[in-house]
Amino acid sequence: MRSSCACLMKPVLHGYFRSSCSWRVRIAFALKGIEYDQVPVNLVKDGGQQLTDQYRAVNPMQQVPAVTIDDITLSQSQRAQVRMISDLIASGIQPLQNLTVLEKVGSEKIQWAQHFINKGFKALESILKQTSGTYCFGNEISMADICLAPQVYNAERYKVDLDQYPTIKRINQTLMEIEAFKVSHPSCQPDTPDQMRA
Amino acid sequence: MRSSCACLMKPVLHGYFRSSCSWRVRIAFALKGIEYDQVPVNLVKDGGQQLTDQYRAVNPMQQVPAVTIDDITLSQSQRAQVRMISDLIASGIQPLQNLTVLEKVGSEKIQWAQHFINKGFKALESILKQTSGTYCFGNEISMADICLAPQVYNAERYKVDLDQYPTIKRINQTLMEIEAFKVSHPSCQPDTPDQMRA
Repeated sequence: MRSSCACLMKPVLHGYFRSSCSWRVRIAFALKGIEYDQVPVNLVKDGGQQLTDQYRAVNPMQQVPAVTIDDITLSQSQRAQVRMISDLIASGIQPLQNLTVLEKVGSEKIQWAQHFINKGFKALESILKQTSGTYCFGNEISMADICLAPQVYNAERYKVDLDQYPTIKRINQTLMEIEAFKVSHPSCQPDTPDQMRA
Repeated sequence: MRSSCACLMKPVLHGYFRSSCSWRVRIAFALKGIEYDQVPVNLVKDGGQQLTDQYRAVNPMQQVPAVTIDDITLSQSQRAQVRMISDLIASGIQPLQNLTVLEKVGSEKIQWAQHFINKGFKALESILKQTSGTYCFGNEISMADICLAPQVYNAERYKVDLDQYPTIKRINQTLMEIEAFKVSHPSCQPDTPDQMRA
């Protein structure tokens, strides 16, 4: 017998009352009328409960929120995981090392960029170890790969040591052989300066 | 006669060769085999071409990339706009004022948070003036509203003057009357400390 709800157990929200991203998830559950359990993760108590090994196993980014759901629905779960990886890069890493922010940071900008890229890549590496095949998620190119390659390019620009992240490095090398990634590369665009052309 | 491609004109990518987010879009177009035109926006020349009034009309966030597409397909365009608003908040504002980043910023953290929230809210206000009805996009609650309310809560926490953003303020007041936003509010969660309860 199939049911329209594929969840066997109630989703569990690992969050913090004051975290705006946790609140987003609570609103969404409330709007959809989905019952869920909450496991509070206090971001300030005990030096930050999100920094424990126990919580890292739940969310390698060591941030709230994280939602754990019985993952019976593989296709949903695939979409959710591709989005999670894309979001980790697009919201968790890139915004912290973009030009506007680095200008605001000033003289420490290289260290700042390295700090946040390394923090994000540590989490990403541990996720990709679970999810990757040839590409970020299994053996098909997804939005996650579209986010990965440009972020690795930035990491190289800020001299992050990629040998620490063998899975990221391997996937990126594979992506760099693909025509769509080659023709779109920063080294061959209409506005690429001559001295930066490949 | 209907065509499977609803675009009458080629999409135009306003981007910068070196911007990782611009590259993401170029990869996606290349993978899908979509032809597009490029309008380079040099982020460093002339003090940053993204800061001109002309470019602000294209993208109020004054960042690259921006893609302009003949918006015949209204439903697609609605989804794209809801995602644009959500992404403006989830990638363009929230990551820059979250706890981890503010700890790294140190003593200037209030000013830092205000700077990036104001920067984002200026762009958001001008977009919402175009897109909003009762809610962020028309008269139905969307993911954009789920992102908006918690971000306004953060803005209040960091004492951003919301009177500068009448559209944001109005939508938020409307959202605060809705049950799903009330029951999920930080003031009434299992881990809310007694002194912060409503």
